[in-house]
Amino acid sequence: MAELTLVIGNKNYSSWSLRAWLYLKINDISFDEVRLPLDTVQFQQEIYTYSPSGKVPALSHGKVRVWDSFAIIAYIYRTFPDSANWPKDPVVQGLAISAVMEMHSGFMALRQHYPMNCRKTPFKAPLRGNVERDLNRLESLWTMLLDASGGPWLGGELGIVDAYFAPVAMRIHTYQLPVSEPLQRYVQQVLQLPAMQEWIASAKQETEVVNADEWQD
Amino acid sequence: MAELTLVIGNKNYSSWSLRAWLYLKINDISFDEVRLPLDTVQFQQEIYTYSPSGKVPALSHGKVRVWDSFAIIAYIYRTFPDSANWPKDPVVQGLAISAVMEMHSGFMALRQHYPMNCRKTPFKAPLRGNVERDLNRLESLWTMLLDASGGPWLGGELGIVDAYFAPVAMRIHTYQLPVSEPLQRYVQQVLQLPAMQEWIASAKQETEVVNADEWQD
Ligand SMILES: N[C@@H](CCC(=O)N[C@@H](CS)C(=O)NCC(=O)O)C(=O)O
Ligand SMILES: N[C@@H](CCC(=O)N[C@@H](CS)C(=O)NCC(=O)O)C(=O)O
Repeated sequence: MAELTLVIGNKNYSSWSLRAWLYLKINDISFDEVRLPLDTVQFQQEIYTYSPSGKVPALSHGKVRVWDSFAIIAYIYRTFPDSANWPKDPVVQGLAISAVMEMHSGFMALRQHYPMNCRKTPFKAPLRGNVERDLNRLESLWTMLLDASGGPWLGGELGIVDAYFAPVAMRIHTYQLPVSEPLQRYVQQVLQLPAMQEWIASAKQETEVVNADEWQD
Repeated sequence: MAELTLVIGNKNYSSWSLRAWLYLKINDISFDEVRLPLDTVQFQQEIYTYSPSGKVPALSHGKVRVWDSFAIIAYIYRTFPDSANWPKDPVVQGLAISAVMEMHSGFMALRQHYPMNCRKTPFKAPLRGNVERDLNRLESLWTMLLDASGGPWLGGELGIVDAYFAPVAMRIHTYQLPVSEPLQRYVQQVLQLPAMQEWIASAKQETEVVNADEWQD
């Protein structure tokens, strides 16, 4: 089997990188990791070797190149049939795919105003922009998934949807964003995953600061 | 087999709707079509019956609900095994999935400044915003796909990637955006598809005007 290499940004900040990385980890797929710190000359010089879009995450697997967090996950579950796939029940499957795609192109206020920042000490951040609308949408989306799948993960078993929303769980924790009890429990469950603990521990050892991704008072 | 219903916006303007609709059509899958004109009270009143995100396109299939253009395509090729799936060659497959995801979350200048407007008489529009960057990216992405797959469609055979970029082909045509000869030929090939001709003919019969989606001089 050809070697897998995953190119990621800073663990502290790169939310899209976390999705692909976590998906590989929860499936026990081994890979080489290349870290390119965001917002540096090194990033601009090296990223195009791996990723024609100029963004992380990017995967190489022999001659195959895949970029974009979801594209990587889809390529992996198609190529490694033992890895977590979509829920089998058609209703849950419909919800799960839709939720992942909604995350891929939406939740703009949450993404813009509450950047992922794994090492930051949690604090009660004020609500900015349209984040209340995003949080309401998240409340109803996660609740729908947990109800339909029966939990304890968003699609029933741990898998794609959880990897995809892990950076959102991280943000809810860091900025102490208001969500209901059951969602709060789900957030903690994600943060307790050994792979998440490993990611956060590495993030805490990073020293680069990206100002655009730091909370502005 | 349960009934399929696809909810779409105006054919003239709704580029995300076109993607899902075209994918169903090129696979000869029959479905009921519900059209909800964008930017109307009717849209706001009826959309949530079908789509919890409040956006089109949305699909219902018996008890299954799927929203988001790509989620619909993925649900369809998983549920109807005869429909066009990803290219089999791993290199082409990697490119194809990545390209579709890049379209799903990117090409912002093209999307913002050059709204799809099927009935508009083609004219040479000036280049605005960062559209040159998007066009350069498109040039290299489509060229990569056509080279790797051998054409004549982006993934070799007509399929997911073509449905996904059809609204971009429409825009290149309407606004006469500068692309190379081979890409120009690909654009015409997409527009000549019988299903595209059918979509455009219906768009021309629509009378609603959405100002935000009309070209601003
Ligand atoms: N839709 C892409 C988004 C990737 C993305 O925006 N990555 C950011 C870091 S999290 C990046 O590479 N930014 C660097 C840049 O744009 O120069 C995905 O899902 O992977
Ligand atoms: N990521 C979604 C985007 C869908 C989208 O933005 N749809 C637009 C029309 S093309 C819409 O429903 N707008 C209505 C609204 O936001 O009120 C997809 O791929 O389906």
